[in-house]
Amino acid sequence: MKIGIFGTGGVGQALGSRLQSLGHFVMLGAREATNEKAAAWVAKHGGGAGTFADAAAHGELLINATMGSASLDVLTQAGDRFLAGKVLIDVTNPLDFSKGAPPSLSIVNTDSLGERIQRAFPELRVVKTLNTVNAAVMADPARIAGGDHSLFLSGNDPEAKLIVRGLLGELGWKDLIDLGDITTARGPEMYLALWVRLWGGLHTADFNIKVVR
Amino acid sequence: MKIGIFGTGGVGQALGSRLQSLGHFVMLGAREATNEKAAAWVAKHGGGAGTFADAAAHGELLINATMGSASLDVLTQAGDRFLAGKVLIDVTNPLDFSKGAPPSLSIVNTDSLGERIQRAFPELRVVKTLNTVNAAVMADPARIAGGDHSLFLSGNDPEAKLIVRGLLGELGWKDLIDLGDITTARGPEMYLALWVRLWGGLHTADFNIKVVR
Repeated sequence: MKIGIFGTGGVGQALGSRLQSLGHFVMLGAREATNEKAAAWVAKHGGGAGTFADAAAHGELLINATMGSASLDVLTQAGDRFLAGKVLIDVTNPLDFSKGAPPSLSIVNTDSLGERIQRAFPELRVVKTLNTVNAAVMADPARIAGGDHSLFLSGNDPEAKLIVRGLLGELGWKDLIDLGDITTARGPEMYLALWVRLWGGLHTADFNIKVVR
Repeated sequence: MKIGIFGTGGVGQALGSRLQSLGHFVMLGAREATNEKAAAWVAKHGGGAGTFADAAAHGELLINATMGSASLDVLTQAGDRFLAGKVLIDVTNPLDFSKGAPPSLSIVNTDSLGERIQRAFPELRVVKTLNTVNAAVMADPARIAGGDHSLFLSGNDPEAKLIVRGLLGELGWKDLIDLGDITTARGPEMYLALWVRLWGGLHTADFNIKVVR
């Protein structure tokens, strides 16, 4: 599948590399088409690089792997005409480092970044997922406990969630829990407040939670 | 051990019954000494019942199992002189049902109910724990997956956390993760936003999370 990823940081590169290795054709999108991190990534992993609009135009499926604080601006730059009707996997968290570490959230409790993106781009089919683990675990869940742990999906469009389930399955995700519509993104986003403290307590970011029932 | 529990609802009763069965002497505290739920509980399980102050005076260790919105008022009623120097297990969540279901949180993000209690009663040795599971799982973690799932501790007093670890071990808790000081209570409290949505999605409250690393 042709996949456009917004963001050239650790998350975009990790997901992009894994998806390339699985046979997808990934384009990393950045503010400038000449982004050096994206060029270095393409030299190593193949795929393509371009502006946010290039990545949006390229992708049959899109992944938002930008900083939470930049996401709405990035999607505006990508352009409505390239976004409309497409599935967007939103892996971001509205982390606020302005008050120091660990970060708090800039959107919280009665709203979420997932909802805000869906409201701003109503024709985009937003599926919030993957935001509850670090980049390495997102791209390769089997690196922990053989992949025996859980991931959450929030979104308004059942077909979009089915498509995303398929792609997550290719990455090795097994226990996918559908929380409901996009308002349920508040749950996995607010879980970050626990995640950052587990990170501190466990001295590793290589962990996840398994829902036991 | 003599244990005072504030609250006669499902959480107070479930923890009280289990602790009685383990040989502790529990007193349930309520607003009125004549609380009917507490009297019925004593008739069935032994132990005692009284006012919040009675329970505080009785307990070598205290458990806050009131509604989050009532907790500060309850502790004020219990009385500083009975609280000072004691360990308080705070199992409450600052749930706000005023905007409908699922609830949001009335204290969130840059503060927590655990911190607020610790600030209001500086001589109390507050340990936030057990708030991430329902009453039945709190009292008997083995009812799910043989108890193979995680629980978090937040608090400023290392000795208090050791005492609480001991009691949790008696209940059957195995994987206890110390998150750090009482400010880390923000993590497990904000996890409730995910918990309430998992509850909706799983159609049961009999679940917990296991931290996999």
